[in-house]
Amino acid sequence: MQRKFVSLIVGLVTCICSVAAGANVPAKPEASGRPNVVVIVADDHGTDAIGAYGNRIVRTPAIDALARDGVRFDRAFSTVSSCSPSRATILTGRQTHTNGMYGLQQVVHHFQSFDDELSLPVALENAGYRTARIGKYHVAPDSVFRFGKNLGAGKKAQRGELGRSPVEMADLSNGFISADGPFFLYFATMDPHRSAPHGKVNRFGNRDDGFADTPTVTYRPEDVVVPAFLPDIPAVRAELAQYYQSVSRVDAGVARLIAHLKAAGKYDNTLILYLSDNGVAFPGAKTTLYEPGMRLPLIVKLPGGGRAGDTEKAMVSWVDLMPTVLDYAGVRVPGSVSDKDTEGRSFRGLLDMTAYKPRQAIYASQTFHEIQMYYPMRVLHEQRYKLIWNIASPLPVRQAVDLKNSATWLAIGDKPNARYGERPVASLLKRPEYELYDLQNDPNETRNLAKDPAMRKRLEEMKAKLVKFLDETGDPWSPNWMGRGE
Amino acid sequence: MQRKFVSLIVGLVTCICSVAAGANVPAKPEASGRPNVVVIVADDHGTDAIGAYGNRIVRTPAIDALARDGVRFDRAFSTVSSCSPSRATILTGRQTHTNGMYGLQQVVHHFQSFDDELSLPVALENAGYRTARIGKYHVAPDSVFRFGKNLGAGKKAQRGELGRSPVEMADLSNGFISADGPFFLYFATMDPHRSAPHGKVNRFGNRDDGFADTPTVTYRPEDVVVPAFLPDIPAVRAELAQYYQSVSRVDAGVARLIAHLKAAGKYDNTLILYLSDNGVAFPGAKTTLYEPGMRLPLIVKLPGGGRAGDTEKAMVSWVDLMPTVLDYAGVRVPGSVSDKDTEGRSFRGLLDMTAYKPRQAIYASQTFHEIQMYYPMRVLHEQRYKLIWNIASPLPVRQAVDLKNSATWLAIGDKPNARYGERPVASLLKRPEYELYDLQNDPNETRNLAKDPAMRKRLEEMKAKLVKFLDETGDPWSPNWMGRGE
Repeated sequence: MQRKFVSLIVGLVTCICSVAAGANVPAKPEASGRPNVVVIVADDHGTDAIGAYGNRIVRTPAIDALARDGVRFDRAFSTVSSCSPSRATILTGRQTHTNGMYGLQQVVHHFQSFDDELSLPVALENAGYRTARIGKYHVAPDSVFRFGKNLGAGKKAQRGELGRSPVEMADLSNGFISADGPFFLYFATMDPHRSAPHGKVNRFGNRDDGFADTPTVTYRPEDVVVPAFLPDIPAVRAELAQYYQSVSRVDAGVARLIAHLKAAGKYDNTLILYLSDNGVAFPGAKTTLYEPGMRLPLIVKLPGGGRAGDTEKAMVSWVDLMPTVLDYAGVRVPGSVSDKDTEGRSFRGLLDMTAYKPRQAIYASQTFHEIQMYYPMRVLHEQRYKLIWNIASPLPVRQAVDLKNSATWLAIGDKPNARYGERPVASLLKRPEYELYDLQNDPNETRNLAKDPAMRKRLEEMKAKLVKFLDETGDPWSPNWMGRGE
Repeated sequence: MQRKFVSLIVGLVTCICSVAAGANVPAKPEASGRPNVVVIVADDHGTDAIGAYGNRIVRTPAIDALARDGVRFDRAFSTVSSCSPSRATILTGRQTHTNGMYGLQQVVHHFQSFDDELSLPVALENAGYRTARIGKYHVAPDSVFRFGKNLGAGKKAQRGELGRSPVEMADLSNGFISADGPFFLYFATMDPHRSAPHGKVNRFGNRDDGFADTPTVTYRPEDVVVPAFLPDIPAVRAELAQYYQSVSRVDAGVARLIAHLKAAGKYDNTLILYLSDNGVAFPGAKTTLYEPGMRLPLIVKLPGGGRAGDTEKAMVSWVDLMPTVLDYAGVRVPGSVSDKDTEGRSFRGLLDMTAYKPRQAIYASQTFHEIQMYYPMRVLHEQRYKLIWNIASPLPVRQAVDLKNSATWLAIGDKPNARYGERPVASLLKRPEYELYDLQNDPNETRNLAKDPAMRKRLEEMKAKLVKFLDETGDPWSPNWMGRGE
């Protein structure tokens, strides 16, 4: 495969510091003024359940406070709607068909990135950063996604639970935060992911006995806000209430983490990202590339605190996250400085309001969730129009086990003509080869324009542009791919 | 995943030797009389092109001689028709959906077996055998498929070519063969695989300047024997002639290898297997589970030379190879002694004509060839009837790049109504969900009985039996699979 990142060059952000440390002697990282980096990745958290994004029921005061101190992105997109692949994209700045993480990592699914990928922790470690992770990992191989420390490793007995206890995660991170030298902390909760499916109202990890040092915030089904893509039925409301409770637990962890950063005097000089791997774990969002599956929360608190409370309408992609973080860290990776929409590229210029060429397009690439859930899709998402290519459209869509066995789906999934949000239930299970939506006039993607004669030219242009992206990124699913088989 | 082999117990074949070596002191391997093992795996070699299997044109004197010294199986079956997965099955005794090698290993395809698989070389090494491989590898990870030596490793510059030069491979193996102690040599040629595709008559690795110390045996297109599954057209004859030439190069390597074994005085006490990973690399064979894809050459030369020249009609499977070899080596792995048709099991009893419960069924499992060639199939192959379940039957069948770009396919592939052997061309590209064949009356699998009312009961019984196999082996593609996704 083609490798974009070949070698690593470290550039210091402030030349003055470098000179102060002595000519030809690289400054120690802590002397360079380089910011710390905290990337918080929530699990299946949609924009639908965050106060800062307009939900007035769910309580997320810490995340909202972070948004007040930073920039809230309204048009931030993952490139895939499945946990492992999205995390691999976040940590490599590359699409799944390019980094090899085509589907889930665990048990029989067994996908892993290519051995020669350069990951964010390794790039930062090579530049002198201390690196650590805590909570959900879900990527492979370890040699690629290598962190200096796993702060949850000593908690083997409760490892499965640790990601459900973000406050505890924050406390376990404190020693690492407080030590000397710039650091990168990858803080990944299991909340608000669904618990193991059992056909009843899912608890989203909630427990009757709660979690250590964590306030239990509960919600009434009648109070929740049912987003447009979901049907307003009791099962959905009951599950949304549980989901909100799990979200509030994430928020408590964020609160504790921020408190530790502030106590250590490091909050100001830390770049903090809050985001989710993919959309909420309800049919119609997670594992789909409809807007609820890929349009996600992204809050960026800048080092130095610039642009506090701003919102940003520009489109950014999860493939941009690694280049952006590296840009703030002063790390240059050959090939990472791009202004092509087909690749990941730093949006530091956007945040700092210096030079930035706005993205005109977001590309997405989903192939598998579970190994037997083969449903390759490729997406070109422009400002107004969005094209989804369902490559295996003759196949029925297989649902993820947690969605298929959700109380939500069990309540409605056997009624093909019922409305599921603004769609018929059946439309989630069988899809046409092309879906073209006008997001301006149809934000909920209910009217497929792919067969509209008036859209023919646009459709063909977007198809050609999408195929160009596939070819530029060496996609084995490109119609032009001349692969190797033996 | 479920792990069949948990730990390893070594039992010596001859108690007398063990006692002679001293009570409670394990005999040194060489003192135990345990046989050496040579497994020769040719690449895409069908039964169609071997003298011992009835072809009177192709010259394979060494393979034929091996058959005269051993047992030729007429009903030996791979469980998958793709290189990496089949090699992983040969070397683990487990189906691809069980060992995790769902498709090709190389480049973007990137499939690998689960980390906790026990492989044949590791099991034999643990039992005191010296182990080495030479030639084509094509499996991963190395930690699972670990051999003591790679005898071709020093030949990096010509590594890609080494598998095309079986005589050289044999010479490079000689030092290993001649050393003390029982050994396992895994000898895997690249011949008679197709060369890189280019749309012209493929050379199957043949070169104008030949190969070191190797006679070049050429064939005339008008002389070759066109098997029933192929159309008798000039492109096919031209490619078969090249294929035969490549086969004769394999034979030259076998001749040299046998000569070294004899010169070292080790031929007699060596268990030698000659087999292929899958059927010949023509559309209709390789990557299909029709008979030309999975019914393959297997010649077994026993240590001690028993049953010289016999033929065997009993059905055996590639999942049986590892248990059989371990049985001869005196190595017992818990769980490997089975008489269930769903699992791999030793057929030593068959070869030695002692206790053996004949297989009533062969099961096969193919899921991918290249990563974008998703076409999962599961097969129940009984004595007379064969059921193929094409799980993704709504999809068109994607052809492997070497087959799609073969002169054979380019000559006929765009003529959907043309006959390809006894089938229409189109039937290779789009298949029904179920195919049921009566191999007794229809050995070329041209009449699908799945919709024949008279066969309804048999079809349902075979479907139920196949699903039982999937469930027993934890197949993610089973309709009953309740997997894990996050």
